[in-house]
Amino acid sequence: MQTHRRKKVEIVVEAAFVRPVLDWLKEMGATGYTLIPKVSGDGHHGERAAGDISRVFDNVLIIAIVREEVAYRILEDSLKVLANATGIVYLSDVEVARAGHF
Amino acid sequence: MQTHRRKKVEIVVEAAFVRPVLDWLKEMGATGYTLIPKVSGDGHHGERAAGDISRVFDNVLIIAIVREEVAYRILEDSLKVLANATGIVYLSDVEVARAGHF
Amino acid sequence: MQTHRRKKVEIVVEAAFVRPVLDWLKEMGATGYTLIPKVSGDGHHGERAAGDISRVFDNVLIIAIVREEVAYRILEDSLKVLANATGIVYLSDVEVARAGHF
Repeated sequence: MQTHRRKKVEIVVEAAFVRPVLDWLKEMGATGYTLIPKVSGDGHHGERAAGDISRVFDNVLIIAIVREEVAYRILEDSLKVLANATGIVYLSDVEVARAGHF
Repeated sequence: MQTHRRKKVEIVVEAAFVRPVLDWLKEMGATGYTLIPKVSGDGHHGERAAGDISRVFDNVLIIAIVREEVAYRILEDSLKVLANATGIVYLSDVEVARAGHF
Repeated sequence: MQTHRRKKVEIVVEAAFVRPVLDWLKEMGATGYTLIPKVSGDGHHGERAAGDISRVFDNVLIIAIVREEVAYRILEDSLKVLANATGIVYLSDVEVARAGHF
């Protein structure tokens, strides 16, 4: 079958940043997203566990399937936009059936 | 080390469709799955948030690691099977250590 | 833009094994992780549903972005380390903006 190549953008960020990050993704050209709440993690900024007393330590995983040029624009802009957030961003290749949806 | 290439199928769908989607995946040849409940999203069919009053707005993310031919069969069939669900489906490449498990 | 190729390691394992698995990942060379709690699944070891009476049936999805050599070391070692756990492990390619973070 014919498939269409897209990029999957994955962003792990503190729950407090969800709304600005979603607005920013839309502005960058993402037409949709999936959000997984209450993930925890550890990395550059100390361990963060879902269920900590302070809700600010909750992280979310945001997934967006976008065209390649949108993905790289997001990745590049993230260096500036997420500079003060404890987020990570990575891209990967995916295939979809309906080009018009993404 | 020797690894084996498989496809990862990811499906975001309303929680109400979980059982039929899992049955359909099995029928298509998937031998296992991982299900992440209570994800939210936005895309072609309006914003859906985990925690909305109506549980029908809850989405799930279903992940299945399958052989390539199974993945494309699922993707192609999804155009028909998920035509009335507000779901999205995408494929990507993964490597596994044990061929017999997938 | 210039990006850096890394491997994404994904591990689905019973919640009871989270701490040893995270310790093992660190020992293998992973410098961070993201953990999605309360996922359910079905595969080689019988159906496991989030919300079952016994919490031991809860699974988690652990994601780590690492260098290629670390990814293959984890995959190979997993055959031994996860031999008695009902876990699955798979690798995929990702691109990141900041090499130093992973």
